[in-house]
Amino acid sequence: MLSKHQIKLIKSLNQKKYRQQLSLFIVEGVKGINEFLNSDFKLHNLYTTKSIFDAPKNLTIEISETELKKISSLKSPNTALAVFKIPDALEINKEALIIALDDVRDPGNLGTIIRLCDWYGVKDLVCSFNTVDCYNPKVVQATMGSLTRINVNYLNLPDFISSTKETVFGTFMNGENIYNTDLPKNGIIVMGNEANGISEAVQNKITRRITIPQFGEIKETESLNVANATAIVLSEFKRRTIEK
Amino acid sequence: MLSKHQIKLIKSLNQKKYRQQLSLFIVEGVKGINEFLNSDFKLHNLYTTKSIFDAPKNLTIEISETELKKISSLKSPNTALAVFKIPDALEINKEALIIALDDVRDPGNLGTIIRLCDWYGVKDLVCSFNTVDCYNPKVVQATMGSLTRINVNYLNLPDFISSTKETVFGTFMNGENIYNTDLPKNGIIVMGNEANGISEAVQNKITRRITIPQFGEIKETESLNVANATAIVLSEFKRRTIEK
Repeated sequence: MLSKHQIKLIKSLNQKKYRQQLSLFIVEGVKGINEFLNSDFKLHNLYTTKSIFDAPKNLTIEISETELKKISSLKSPNTALAVFKIPDALEINKEALIIALDDVRDPGNLGTIIRLCDWYGVKDLVCSFNTVDCYNPKVVQATMGSLTRINVNYLNLPDFISSTKETVFGTFMNGENIYNTDLPKNGIIVMGNEANGISEAVQNKITRRITIPQFGEIKETESLNVANATAIVLSEFKRRTIEK
Repeated sequence: MLSKHQIKLIKSLNQKKYRQQLSLFIVEGVKGINEFLNSDFKLHNLYTTKSIFDAPKNLTIEISETELKKISSLKSPNTALAVFKIPDALEINKEALIIALDDVRDPGNLGTIIRLCDWYGVKDLVCSFNTVDCYNPKVVQATMGSLTRINVNYLNLPDFISSTKETVFGTFMNGENIYNTDLPKNGIIVMGNEANGISEAVQNKITRRITIPQFGEIKETESLNVANATAIVLSEFKRRTIEK
């Protein structure tokens, strides 16, 4: 049975302000919840219509399908909703390959970029303050559990870049052809905002401009979705590490 | 000024059933509408708050911001909404590189895959009947105009594959490492459903199984988003055409 207070608290977590105040976030669905239960993340409360989870009894609250619908933001809620504690971000390994996001705003894009980091063994994702919150329920949903394995830091991106010694890559229309250029094992790869690309303050810190070439007729107005561009760039960096 | 009849017609186009009955679909926003106006697509009606379009006067209806809000499905409608005619699909060039989608359901995924085809010079996209409709407003929005340049056909996928002589590629966990294998210039690349991958009927037609290898620790439950996987596979096929 859900109290009004609990419903209010859960619903408030759809807003970044309350997630930050309370240091809590929502995970929905069996697969996602199990990934977080099997990780270092700490459970705050689990609301479930079935006793199928390996979770502490004192934190588990059995609810009805109707109650689940009330607290879920999914069209078709799947069995359970869990509230987890937001952990402190870990220290960044500045000598590894790092993805840096400069104001990526779409939750789906951030979610799939986190999955890409997980796939390609990138441990650290750094984000400008205006990048969408990785604990936004839509982002958590889109990461499919990969968020449990990636260290996400929100920070002043130009300052962070200045503090590192690695090469800083950015994708532009007029850079080196990514398919034919040498790429190091480590470095920072900056991906920009969906509409405006990389901001001027960050552009000034880019040390190597790279390009994913267009094939067929050149269409000046055209661009790739930022998550797809990240996929291609990461693929190019990583394939060279196995070919060497 | 909008009539009730016009509002009803426009709203009905959010449903596939009515789009197919009327052979009409919606494009929203200045950039998107201009891309379609500058293409072979035929305008049915343009509803706009500003006279900034190069469109036939007799098809242009000036409306207020309030009216635009009424007919738009966007949170922040942008200046105009246009209704275009759905064209007949063109014949497929079976001797080129083709992307085939087996029940891709997410509009954002289909939209960004259409952008990828455009970027990488793939002219033909073939889709199983259960793949999301490319004239769904969310797909049109996500394609950013690329839909004007890609020939999309909905068809029986196993039958289509049987009718071609090219190699049929599919991504699986246990295929050839895509980074280290030879890839031809042409062929059919099948991408599967977001949750279930490639269906059994289509799997039986795959002649070469390829794999995007994981880096770092192997996570059996993990997978890439289908649009990102398409990005990586297309990138691998196309980079070899410039290296040769």
